[in-house]
Amino acid sequence: MKDVGERALIERMIGRIGRCSGIGPGDDAACIDVDGVKIVAATDIVTKERHMPKGMTMEQFGWTAAAVNFSDIASMGASPFGILAAVSLPPETDENVFYDIMDGMDQCAEFCGTEVIGGDTKSGPVSICGTALGVCRNPPLTRSGARPGDIIAVTGALGSAGAGWYAAMNGIDEKDAISSVMMPIPKVKEGLFLSDKRIATACMDISDGLSTTAAAICISSNVGMDIMWESLPKGAGVETVAKKLKISEKRLMLDSGGEYELLFTFRKDDLDTLHSSDIDFSVIGVVTSGDSAYLTENGRKERMENRGYEHFTAD
Amino acid sequence: MKDVGERALIERMIGRIGRCSGIGPGDDAACIDVDGVKIVAATDIVTKERHMPKGMTMEQFGWTAAAVNFSDIASMGASPFGILAAVSLPPETDENVFYDIMDGMDQCAEFCGTEVIGGDTKSGPVSICGTALGVCRNPPLTRSGARPGDIIAVTGALGSAGAGWYAAMNGIDEKDAISSVMMPIPKVKEGLFLSDKRIATACMDISDGLSTTAAAICISSNVGMDIMWESLPKGAGVETVAKKLKISEKRLMLDSGGEYELLFTFRKDDLDTLHSSDIDFSVIGVVTSGDSAYLTENGRKERMENRGYEHFTAD
Repeated sequence: MKDVGERALIERMIGRIGRCSGIGPGDDAACIDVDGVKIVAATDIVTKERHMPKGMTMEQFGWTAAAVNFSDIASMGASPFGILAAVSLPPETDENVFYDIMDGMDQCAEFCGTEVIGGDTKSGPVSICGTALGVCRNPPLTRSGARPGDIIAVTGALGSAGAGWYAAMNGIDEKDAISSVMMPIPKVKEGLFLSDKRIATACMDISDGLSTTAAAICISSNVGMDIMWESLPKGAGVETVAKKLKISEKRLMLDSGGEYELLFTFRKDDLDTLHSSDIDFSVIGVVTSGDSAYLTENGRKERMENRGYEHFTAD
Repeated sequence: MKDVGERALIERMIGRIGRCSGIGPGDDAACIDVDGVKIVAATDIVTKERHMPKGMTMEQFGWTAAAVNFSDIASMGASPFGILAAVSLPPETDENVFYDIMDGMDQCAEFCGTEVIGGDTKSGPVSICGTALGVCRNPPLTRSGARPGDIIAVTGALGSAGAGWYAAMNGIDEKDAISSVMMPIPKVKEGLFLSDKRIATACMDISDGLSTTAAAICISSNVGMDIMWESLPKGAGVETVAKKLKISEKRLMLDSGGEYELLFTFRKDDLDTLHSSDIDFSVIGVVTSGDSAYLTENGRKERMENRGYEHFTAD
């Protein structure tokens, strides 16, 4: 009998789904052409154990369940048009818990310009299975279009989700970092801009950490990446939390799950368009003709592995 | 602190979702107009505890998870174009369990003319959250269109899922009944016919039992129903299981969850079209101007309550 980890299972599931007729398997969301309209769908489970740091309210838990799914829609450059919520709660749960969860999901859906359109409830350990739906009005952004010479960029900053998780769990007063893990912001506007202007050659959200995400784009696009440590935008709380808890900044910025920034590649010619937009982004490296992502720090190069991002657990 | 049952939660969720801009809340699936295309989506969780009778294989469990979701698409008269699978399994699970589940989902999706297009896996008690997607190329079938004078019909036969569950749990050799609970058939072809020919004025699957379903259509359509006990088509295994286990046939045929036949209403004029089709159906009553569904047996009338269908549990 062979045990199988969650990540391995996901990869095998993706392998299994490889036959399907739409774009999607291996990408953040499936994309199916339906009567000429490109429908995008993504499903993700959040559990109390894995996604609920100390102090997170049920409303924030509901927000998070919606956000992780909208993030997958965002990374395809799609426009969300609804989310379904399948909520598991222990049978003895007070009904206000349910209302709080739904309030949080409603608010995140509204933030993303859409609404909760359906759902289900069952008895079970606290978890929410969300399914976000979107429509691609431009060619969907995928993992496979990066070309040598393209520039690599990331929206926002890195590490605040990881820093926020540790801050919440250890009573460190880092409000911005904690807020980024309690109410993650799906980058819907950014994804739409990148697809609308035909800028991104490849795009993924970094919900599994920057290293894993960079490695995944390299594999799908059959390219390499040179990423410069010094150019990585450092998120709120990273320095303090790293110092106080003796965690390396690199671990927080490269290998934390729960971040919903977009990693994307684009042609040099589009740099001006990006700079003149209101998208908050940082250039972090270049796509190469190699076969792996490398991080250069003080002139020393190390390979960025698809090492499986850090699994936070609340207990 | 007030406890809240699963059914009450679902009803409140539906109430909460009542604001949403598409058809759907209260119906089996949400229906949203996306750039002129009517997209239908339904999500349902199946759990080992609730949906896995003794002897059910993991492949059949996967099939069931897909079937319950496709049934919701079928009851809207929509054409399925994909299913997403979010699978929870305990961390020590052998990976073949996962493959078996996916095989079952694949097979059911193929039976419905589509495929598994995406998914997620997490650690947790055995459960599958499926989300089926479809497209309505005709006006969607809802619960609210039944009019006094319409005829009431049901596809297939009633009670075999209930009988099959008890047969499996008690070692009674009723193969057809057991097969109907191990591999429920979503009535996609039937739903498509009813919408394509503009026949059904209202339609629902009877996954919550005939009584609950009839009561739900009465409420949504603001009508009553007269249903004749003698005209109800008796499913495989009902007589034997009822006799052997001293369960009333009525309970098996009216109040068993897990049946995926369609209950629908239609105008008298369309009876010939239905009879000349290859749809297997039985006329069971008429829509009235009353406000509840009634069952007449030997001239005695009793109200069919939305009593909450019987919750099977495997333990």
